[in-house]
Amino acid sequence: MKNIIKIALVFTLVLGMASVALSQDHPCLMLTPESVENIRSQLGKAPLFDTELAKTIKEVDAEMEEGIFVPVPKDMAGGYTHERHKKNFFILQKAGNLFQITGNEKYAVYIRDMLLEYAALFPSLDLHPTNRSYATGKIFWQCLNDANWLVYASQAYDCVYDWLEPEQVAHLNEHLFRPLADFISVENPKFFNRIHNHSTWANAAVGMIGLVMDDEELVKRALYGLEDDGVDENEVDNDGGFIKVAGVRKAGFLAQLDYSFSPDGYFTEGPYYLRYAMSPFLLFGKSLANNRPDIDILNYRDGILLKAVYALLNQTDAQGQFFPINDAQKGMSWLSREVVAAVDIAYFHGGRDPMLLSIAQKQGRVLLDETGFAVARAIEKGLAIPFQQKSVAYVDGADGKKGGVSILRTDFGDGELCTVFKYSAHGMGHGHFDKLSFSLYDELGEIIQDYGAARWVNIDQKGGGRYLPENNTFAKQSIAHNTVVVNETSHYEGSVKKGEAHHPVPYFFDTEQGGIQISSAKDFNAYDGVGLHRTLILLEDESFRKPILIDVFKIDSDKERLYDLPIWFQGHLLQANFSYDAALNAMSTLGADDGYEHIWKEAQGSSEGEEAKITWFNHGRFYSLTSATTSGDELIFARSGANDPEFNLRHDPAFIIRRKATKNTVFVSVVEPHGAYNPVSEIPDSPFSSIESLEVVYDDARYTIFQFAKANGTKWTVMLSNMDTNADAKHLLEVNDNKFEWQGPYSISKK
Amino acid sequence: MKNIIKIALVFTLVLGMASVALSQDHPCLMLTPESVENIRSQLGKAPLFDTELAKTIKEVDAEMEEGIFVPVPKDMAGGYTHERHKKNFFILQKAGNLFQITGNEKYAVYIRDMLLEYAALFPSLDLHPTNRSYATGKIFWQCLNDANWLVYASQAYDCVYDWLEPEQVAHLNEHLFRPLADFISVENPKFFNRIHNHSTWANAAVGMIGLVMDDEELVKRALYGLEDDGVDENEVDNDGGFIKVAGVRKAGFLAQLDYSFSPDGYFTEGPYYLRYAMSPFLLFGKSLANNRPDIDILNYRDGILLKAVYALLNQTDAQGQFFPINDAQKGMSWLSREVVAAVDIAYFHGGRDPMLLSIAQKQGRVLLDETGFAVARAIEKGLAIPFQQKSVAYVDGADGKKGGVSILRTDFGDGELCTVFKYSAHGMGHGHFDKLSFSLYDELGEIIQDYGAARWVNIDQKGGGRYLPENNTFAKQSIAHNTVVVNETSHYEGSVKKGEAHHPVPYFFDTEQGGIQISSAKDFNAYDGVGLHRTLILLEDESFRKPILIDVFKIDSDKERLYDLPIWFQGHLLQANFSYDAALNAMSTLGADDGYEHIWKEAQGSSEGEEAKITWFNHGRFYSLTSATTSGDELIFARSGANDPEFNLRHDPAFIIRRKATKNTVFVSVVEPHGAYNPVSEIPDSPFSSIESLEVVYDDARYTIFQFAKANGTKWTVMLSNMDTNADAKHLLEVNDNKFEWQGPYSISKK
Repeated sequence: MKNIIKIALVFTLVLGMASVALSQDHPCLMLTPESVENIRSQLGKAPLFDTELAKTIKEVDAEMEEGIFVPVPKDMAGGYTHERHKKNFFILQKAGNLFQITGNEKYAVYIRDMLLEYAALFPSLDLHPTNRSYATGKIFWQCLNDANWLVYASQAYDCVYDWLEPEQVAHLNEHLFRPLADFISVENPKFFNRIHNHSTWANAAVGMIGLVMDDEELVKRALYGLEDDGVDENEVDNDGGFIKVAGVRKAGFLAQLDYSFSPDGYFTEGPYYLRYAMSPFLLFGKSLANNRPDIDILNYRDGILLKAVYALLNQTDAQGQFFPINDAQKGMSWLSREVVAAVDIAYFHGGRDPMLLSIAQKQGRVLLDETGFAVARAIEKGLAIPFQQKSVAYVDGADGKKGGVSILRTDFGDGELCTVFKYSAHGMGHGHFDKLSFSLYDELGEIIQDYGAARWVNIDQKGGGRYLPENNTFAKQSIAHNTVVVNETSHYEGSVKKGEAHHPVPYFFDTEQGGIQISSAKDFNAYDGVGLHRTLILLEDESFRKPILIDVFKIDSDKERLYDLPIWFQGHLLQANFSYDAALNAMSTLGADDGYEHIWKEAQGSSEGEEAKITWFNHGRFYSLTSATTSGDELIFARSGANDPEFNLRHDPAFIIRRKATKNTVFVSVVEPHGAYNPVSEIPDSPFSSIESLEVVYDDARYTIFQFAKANGTKWTVMLSNMDTNADAKHLLEVNDNKFEWQGPYSISKK
Repeated sequence: MKNIIKIALVFTLVLGMASVALSQDHPCLMLTPESVENIRSQLGKAPLFDTELAKTIKEVDAEMEEGIFVPVPKDMAGGYTHERHKKNFFILQKAGNLFQITGNEKYAVYIRDMLLEYAALFPSLDLHPTNRSYATGKIFWQCLNDANWLVYASQAYDCVYDWLEPEQVAHLNEHLFRPLADFISVENPKFFNRIHNHSTWANAAVGMIGLVMDDEELVKRALYGLEDDGVDENEVDNDGGFIKVAGVRKAGFLAQLDYSFSPDGYFTEGPYYLRYAMSPFLLFGKSLANNRPDIDILNYRDGILLKAVYALLNQTDAQGQFFPINDAQKGMSWLSREVVAAVDIAYFHGGRDPMLLSIAQKQGRVLLDETGFAVARAIEKGLAIPFQQKSVAYVDGADGKKGGVSILRTDFGDGELCTVFKYSAHGMGHGHFDKLSFSLYDELGEIIQDYGAARWVNIDQKGGGRYLPENNTFAKQSIAHNTVVVNETSHYEGSVKKGEAHHPVPYFFDTEQGGIQISSAKDFNAYDGVGLHRTLILLEDESFRKPILIDVFKIDSDKERLYDLPIWFQGHLLQANFSYDAALNAMSTLGADDGYEHIWKEAQGSSEGEEAKITWFNHGRFYSLTSATTSGDELIFARSGANDPEFNLRHDPAFIIRRKATKNTVFVSVVEPHGAYNPVSEIPDSPFSSIESLEVVYDDARYTIFQFAKANGTKWTVMLSNMDTNADAKHLLEVNDNKFEWQGPYSISKK
């Protein structure tokens, strides 16, 4: 109640007050004197903004009542000092906006007092006592968090800069901001002078405080990096990623824009890290747009910043959760604060796309600046239209020639089926060894999962919130993904250096044919002497109640090898169409290395050459996988969680098809979402797979032909050309007196 | 679009039509000529009813377009013929209501034609070919489903009875209904003449068709059972339950009312089965209310039918899901069709309780009869108020003297904490061996779970939807529950006969003190020579952000024994405060029998006499359990799923405190819900338990005293009187120069 009255009072103040005298120079980052004036004059006309303002006032006021706490740094993420300093920078930034928008000086006083405490503390700080990072920070355990602090604190400082006494400004510049900017740049070249999301934060932090302080040296350093960083080519970070990217000798913010993204905005580390990196990219980007029109940052590299925002928004499932490509904690979504900033800034600076407004509506909050105001105002005017997630093939690499990631998705009624196919470059230190892997979603979530990272971000009890040992030993390994593993060895033998040196190649991609979406890619370097070629097809056909996924994984090998194809299905196994022996009283691991040591072998059957079928149940739905097997294939049920002394891993199920002592071969599977069950009605709807047979008719280097049929006799024939993507090329093949004839890289016929 | 037009047309017909000539005799079960007239005259005034009507028209019309299918019975539950016949009876019943309410003859024609097909088929049927039930049916695999069919088909028949030609009525009576009624009664006395939910369906079916046919012999049979059933005392059903209840020689519907419920409406099999049994109880109950005022069924046994409805509604978690006491599939809730009927009938016939309307709103549907109409009309008038789930101690047994189940629940802001404490009688064939077990919920669901049944109802792939072997070997065993297991042997040595012969006894129950809710019960028969005594306390205290649960489990034993206290926490283990060794490359079961063979032993530590603490994470929340241990206690992490050759079991975690070679002892634990984490913000809020110490100060047969404290020094002292519940009794104890003084069975002090 007290707070409500207070908010009402503040609004009265805002609406009724005379304009507060402000310098023409500050704020200059996310707000300007003009944008502040514009917002003030229209308060009450953009409900989402007004709500955000009221909420922020309530939050900041509550914090201010608690007092100011600037503890001596001590803890890892999740611990008190870490979380306290993190909260401080978020509150600082908010208080700065509130001072500008409401004109209430108490926020300026709060910012001043807290910054003065930091200025008193900072000179006394040695490196953070944890000393666990390749770039240990001072306020936090890693420089990265110190850079986060500076990105946000700069904004607060910017908002009070002209309000402070000149001697306070001089004091803060000399004892806090300039030393901190130097610390995370010249004193930490491995951290600052790198093409990496960490360094983007560093660049932005140094650049933003440089703009506030009008310190041209800092701005230049931020834009172009350190001239001579003395970093060795073989140095790596905590995640095993190389500091230097081969061939790249540039650094700084503009180099990040040049090298972090592919030409279409794909970020090689994946969307989880792109989401994280978007904040500094866009916050410093917007700051530059305000202050350095000479750089024309929004049009830099054909508007790469805005392309990146769309690429980010599109790498999401139906709930807006990011696909966990490479290291990624699941559950992160377009509701995150970084994406709020991305959406608002992209809307304001990128052509006022009304689809972005619908995401802002889901986010339910906006930035407290002109971009957020514009979004809120447009929503109030009813301009929002639904955001359309697209089927798309992203290219990877700064030159767009280092593989890519494709997303196939199809809407049907109130549902969707979506597959993510990864044939990208390694993704630096956060890359996983999962060439040609895929995952599958419906509108409720994962059907076939990617494990994501073995990490509990900011959860102190789990290794201080850092990457856990099992991230390297399991989550990054090939067997943890839905891709073929040869001889129980991970791709590139698990070497980041080898992984960074190669990438798969797109073969073809087509989503233009009615009902058929197809993506195909090859890899020649994950294993010496082995070529991998996967084709994923999303097929909509009225004979099936929902779309189905067809998966064709070809292997060409120079000698006999062992192949494992794991399918990390999400849910509870209902039934298999083959007999198997389960581990009853004792259970052991699937192997000893390359992630196999983290997998319990729960059961094993074997194929007599028929198709193997499993049906599972998840979030009220039935799914089946039907796979053409060859006689002697081992059919294994497994579960993650072995060799996990601290219970760091989830215990998730997998089905593994193991083909032994084979040279060239092909795995063909169909995944079929086919029914539902509700524990309240207890009535199963379509609990059985409708596919009765699946048979490989022909397979060699040039062609792969297979057929599958329903019980009612309807039969599909899929013909693939493996070495020729020419749309006009005609293919003719006779197999056992049957003629197969088609044109182009693929054909699907039904009869 | 087509359907919308059709519905609109029907409505026009209804509203504009002349009254259809109806006999004064039928319908007589759920509808009467008067109630039909009342509904017709007010269509359009009760939106929920109108919506239900439109939906039902759409559903039944779609089914009618498909045609009539009355296949020769063949399949188990989940299979085609089973699901088809099941659908038939639901559609028949709906079509009957539609004929009455809309007056559209096509529904009567459909019912007539389908019933005639059944009349043609039925005489040719032998027992169902599956032959897997103690009472095999004809249309379905068990008589139970045949009785379901008759309960619903009777209602349809009732609706068209006066519309049919007399010779058609005679034909159906002679060739279908009377033979079917005889089949499920006189030809199956073990099924019909029993105190059991199955038999309630049989009684209701025979009674309802008897009322329709005006067959007094059938009605009498339904009400009072078969006079001489010839069933032996030792005969059991498929679930191992005895057909005869010791001492009970009555049968039939009235006997069900006498013996199925405790005086306050608790149903000994638990709410999952009460939900199922409520349909025949209420459908036949309402039919009797209409036709046999002499019985005054709604006031029978002090209104036991209505008491049962409230007991059912209150045995739910915050989402309205039933507590899985005894055999129960999780997820079943007050949204089920049976509860729709229960709520509507209880509202109409039970004093128009406005709290019931809020449940009807959540259900979003109503019966298409006068009760559903009254509910919908009252909701339209805005009469609904929220349903209050209560803290309550239910007694068990027809005489109310066979133990009970208590529910402690507390609201705090937008959350709740709720514990279910089971000290009931065995619960017949569906009973579990879990004396003094408990489970814990918050508003999001389970914190500490009861496994429920090992069964996938109606899922053909899982044993035809029946109880799975693991239901007996695991789900019913004591170790699968949150209760003490002695010498690795289940309560009553897993014998239903022994279990049925005994029950625990309530010790005391008090929810009247501010902030303290307490329930205590004892058991003397689960083990020879061992007395068990558990006390659960739900404590609300401003020192904790949320309420906490205190669990005190005393054991008095005549000799040294091994005690296991399992805690089936739901979620992912974050941390323990003791060291443990995990099974790394190989894992084995916890034991060989009594359910232990179904549990993998994942890790083991041991206590040095300090309190053991574990913290886990589930649905975005942090929870901790702190338990006072004695030196040498083994601390085990375990998981269900061993010896499970068909993947029938869930793989759920448990923490087990094992105390070895001990006579009398006490386990004292505190469960503390204390924080939250959202993967979008990635900021943990209160991830650590705030309890720093927990110590048993004194424990003997008369008294138990323990203390726990927070890091800030705040300390609670809990004093329990174990043998005297007198509220006026004064207790004084001196332990190590500390004086403990209190009055009544318990006291909690804080300083």
